[in-house]
Amino acid sequence: MSGGPADRPMEWLDEVKWTDDGLVPVIAQDAASGRILMFAWMNRESLALTVAEGRAVYWSRSRGKLWRKGEESGNVQKLKELRLDCDGDVLLMQVEQVGGIACHTGRESCFYRRLDGGAWTTVDSVIRDPATMYGGKA
Amino acid sequence: MSGGPADRPMEWLDEVKWTDDGLVPVIAQDAASGRILMFAWMNRESLALTVAEGRAVYWSRSRGKLWRKGEESGNVQKLKELRLDCDGDVLLMQVEQVGGIACHTGRESCFYRRLDGGAWTTVDSVIRDPATMYGGKA
Repeated sequence: MSGGPADRPMEWLDEVKWTDDGLVPVIAQDAASGRILMFAWMNRESLALTVAEGRAVYWSRSRGKLWRKGEESGNVQKLKELRLDCDGDVLLMQVEQVGGIACHTGRESCFYRRLDGGAWTTVDSVIRDPATMYGGKA
Repeated sequence: MSGGPADRPMEWLDEVKWTDDGLVPVIAQDAASGRILMFAWMNRESLALTVAEGRAVYWSRSRGKLWRKGEESGNVQKLKELRLDCDGDVLLMQVEQVGGIACHTGRESCFYRRLDGGAWTTVDSVIRDPATMYGGKA
């Protein structure tokens, strides 16, 4: 046996196959219900922080900066398990979703529209008014 | 009420936000177990075929062609439900995984490596030797 994690603390990050933009797609699944909550991206720094802090830290492509999930809404995602796929280019996180809401629309999951009869149909309810989640303290 | 699906059979495809390459990421989840099986991509044609044929038809980026999941291995994914996320740029499929194997390594899921103690560790068993899945009839 050659050296353990202490000898190569960041080797696991090198095994991730990053896109040309230095990103990797991440699927967040509720560890309790198995429901897919959201899909987002991480860069190397955000993935390292996710593991170090035990909470989801994404890379916001639209804002071009780190995005600690729940930093505004309080809907933090606590990391329970992290997996890598066979190609090494997709991550799957099992998380504990604080507040039970992952979507900015105030729903549990971002996947709340289902294809029914040839149309996308909203089938999940809003749990909490988004206006009350993002500093809308009136 | 304006016209129903019969009047606009492909409108739902227009609501998907495609990448600059004309693709959309797709998460495949086992409808029975809730397990995430794999992650792949579709283009407009493959998504239309997926719904029309009731089975997963991906776009293979490496081979640059349509990929009817299971066409070689027999491990077809029957479509049970299709969802779109809040941003309209990610799809989630509930599928019935024929043969119980989604991964080309012969495992149920492509996400068979878990981060344990700073290293990616294979934690799922091979169900079927891949050599017997891809025309390896000896």
